[in-house]
Amino acid sequence: MSSNKVNITLLGATGSIGKNTLEIISNHPDKFNLFACSVHNNIDELHSIINNFSPEFVVITNTDAGNKFKKSYSGNSKIIVGKEGLVEIASMNKVDTVVAAIVGFAGLESVIAALKSKKRVALANKETLVVAGHLITEIANNNNSKIIPVDSEHSAIFQCLQGEPENSISKIILTASGGPFRNLSLNELLNVTIDQALNHPNWKMGKKVSIDSATMMNKGLEVIEARWLFGLPKEKIKVLIHPQSIIHSMVEFVDGSVKAQMGIPDMKIPIQYALTFPERIISSNSKMNFSELKELTFMEVDKNKFPMLNLAYFALEQGGTMPAIMNAANEVAVNSFLNGLVHFTKISDITSQIMLKHKLVQFPSIDDIFEADRWSRDAAENLIKK
Amino acid sequence: MSSNKVNITLLGATGSIGKNTLEIISNHPDKFNLFACSVHNNIDELHSIINNFSPEFVVITNTDAGNKFKKSYSGNSKIIVGKEGLVEIASMNKVDTVVAAIVGFAGLESVIAALKSKKRVALANKETLVVAGHLITEIANNNNSKIIPVDSEHSAIFQCLQGEPENSISKIILTASGGPFRNLSLNELLNVTIDQALNHPNWKMGKKVSIDSATMMNKGLEVIEARWLFGLPKEKIKVLIHPQSIIHSMVEFVDGSVKAQMGIPDMKIPIQYALTFPERIISSNSKMNFSELKELTFMEVDKNKFPMLNLAYFALEQGGTMPAIMNAANEVAVNSFLNGLVHFTKISDITSQIMLKHKLVQFPSIDDIFEADRWSRDAAENLIKK
Repeated sequence: MSSNKVNITLLGATGSIGKNTLEIISNHPDKFNLFACSVHNNIDELHSIINNFSPEFVVITNTDAGNKFKKSYSGNSKIIVGKEGLVEIASMNKVDTVVAAIVGFAGLESVIAALKSKKRVALANKETLVVAGHLITEIANNNNSKIIPVDSEHSAIFQCLQGEPENSISKIILTASGGPFRNLSLNELLNVTIDQALNHPNWKMGKKVSIDSATMMNKGLEVIEARWLFGLPKEKIKVLIHPQSIIHSMVEFVDGSVKAQMGIPDMKIPIQYALTFPERIISSNSKMNFSELKELTFMEVDKNKFPMLNLAYFALEQGGTMPAIMNAANEVAVNSFLNGLVHFTKISDITSQIMLKHKLVQFPSIDDIFEADRWSRDAAENLIKK
Repeated sequence: MSSNKVNITLLGATGSIGKNTLEIISNHPDKFNLFACSVHNNIDELHSIINNFSPEFVVITNTDAGNKFKKSYSGNSKIIVGKEGLVEIASMNKVDTVVAAIVGFAGLESVIAALKSKKRVALANKETLVVAGHLITEIANNNNSKIIPVDSEHSAIFQCLQGEPENSISKIILTASGGPFRNLSLNELLNVTIDQALNHPNWKMGKKVSIDSATMMNKGLEVIEARWLFGLPKEKIKVLIHPQSIIHSMVEFVDGSVKAQMGIPDMKIPIQYALTFPERIISSNSKMNFSELKELTFMEVDKNKFPMLNLAYFALEQGGTMPAIMNAANEVAVNSFLNGLVHFTKISDITSQIMLKHKLVQFPSIDDIFEADRWSRDAAENLIKK
């Protein structure tokens, strides 16, 4: 790396990925500079971020919180209120790398803006590639800009592919912890609570991702994401349960050799790699204790218990607007579950019903995708109200 | 790869690595050509090799067997009798790649000749780097010739390092099956038979390597080999027992990320990679069955049960002629065990006694190493005769 610091825009600074990113920046003040960041409405944390990192720009996407903050704030950071600010700080000239860590569909436009401005995008937002993979990869290719995955699974595959020739992949194996309900029966799944669903065995994550892990929709989204990141057909993307979450994913090559990337479950490792790639820098990230490794276990996914994974493969096969429909319906269903409105097992029912109602647009524009997203949310909300 | 075939000299065509190499060549007649090969005295197999591959040159290192064969042979392959022929076929102009698969100290001179002639050396002979690592790496560097490891462990590390920056290794972890006696107590080790020691749980190998696996000297040799292949101090080379032999070795990087290379225990995978590197070619090599993977287990080495590993770290630390002394004494001791002259647990006793008697030469020439080898063999044989 050059002696110049990497100027980072961090979209979604108060979420789980955001906090880990800030920790990396603060561990390596000689390498990284927080140039800009966004928060939604967490003003308490924003104060501490401004104190610690003095970013030049801060976006507050929630207008009420933003306007209130702006009135009372008298420091040096420039405050931008409203979600339009995301696109602005993602594409500023001085920015080298955009860490896209806003969860859900809301992150899409800023990722597109960053890629069009030829930034390196450290992509933690799954939905971007899920809903608009064909457009995003086209934009990245046309602008010669680089998407480096931050998800531990995709980072694992990305790392395993370094130094390997084109067309050498036989298949990739995304590992899945199986979430908190791996060992429950179908009947037991009918009685799970919100707290149980939020209690992931290995990873500390936001609520949406935790529920997606419990339903395995998270793995389904990752399958679709992998299709676009690595240009693979669905037949070459496999999922394997690995409860310890030590092997983050694997690549099988055409000659029978398999590479796996491993590590303790700490998102700082893949985030930091996305920032330093192709270099690696010494860090205080926790190391694996090999003498305590003991055993790694693996098993097939029970798709009867986890129908969301089948939905994702179906959406991938259908293509077009279908992944956007699935993603939006799932977001609504997960929110309803978190608000106590629907039961855990209803999340997949709602999502599949909306998917079956949808009239597919095979080659959607960004506008078509926004429209599909809106339609799916409305349809899912109406279904839940009934 | 170019459309031209790779001309291969195979040193040690009838051993385990040799046979696997021939299978790869015969599976990919469009990619590889057996230009030359050597056998010691296995004339039956030589007939079949000549019939199947029509090599231009054949070396028979055993002079009796060679002279006898030469008299009766009337085919097109040129027959060279005597071990001097190894150097000849390793350095011929038309040769691209030398597969160095002669077990033991006998392989050293031909590897040096190949490197001096700027060949790619697919190195399956451990002893070369063990006894003369400092000289071999110097010769390879001076001639800009490439050593690609064939041992499954070193191939694993070599594969994991592709695409990674210099100085990014935090440590390497050589996995070890633990051999057939992993679960025996010290007392039980006193009563093991030759057949038990030859019965490796995962790999089919030659007798010498099988015994070295049972004593774990094989892993000790690999530790020293790794020091030279990857330029690492002994503190960065670890050994971990992994009974399933699925993970062939691992690399931990400075950022906490770990890469592992895996595969079913089939030497064709690393041999083929050494021939095609940096490419990979589609092959009929057996693939891992991920749904049958079930569990991978790991444990620390019990160095009281396997003192040979400590001897190897001691030899690595002492440097100079000490690894050559250890290697030669071990070869003699293993032979004596295979001939029923000494007991299994005596192999380490003999080796350590010879090592302690040796007067170290810190910066040995090739001649010093030959002299150390000869001295160690004599000393070990005298010790056994007593």
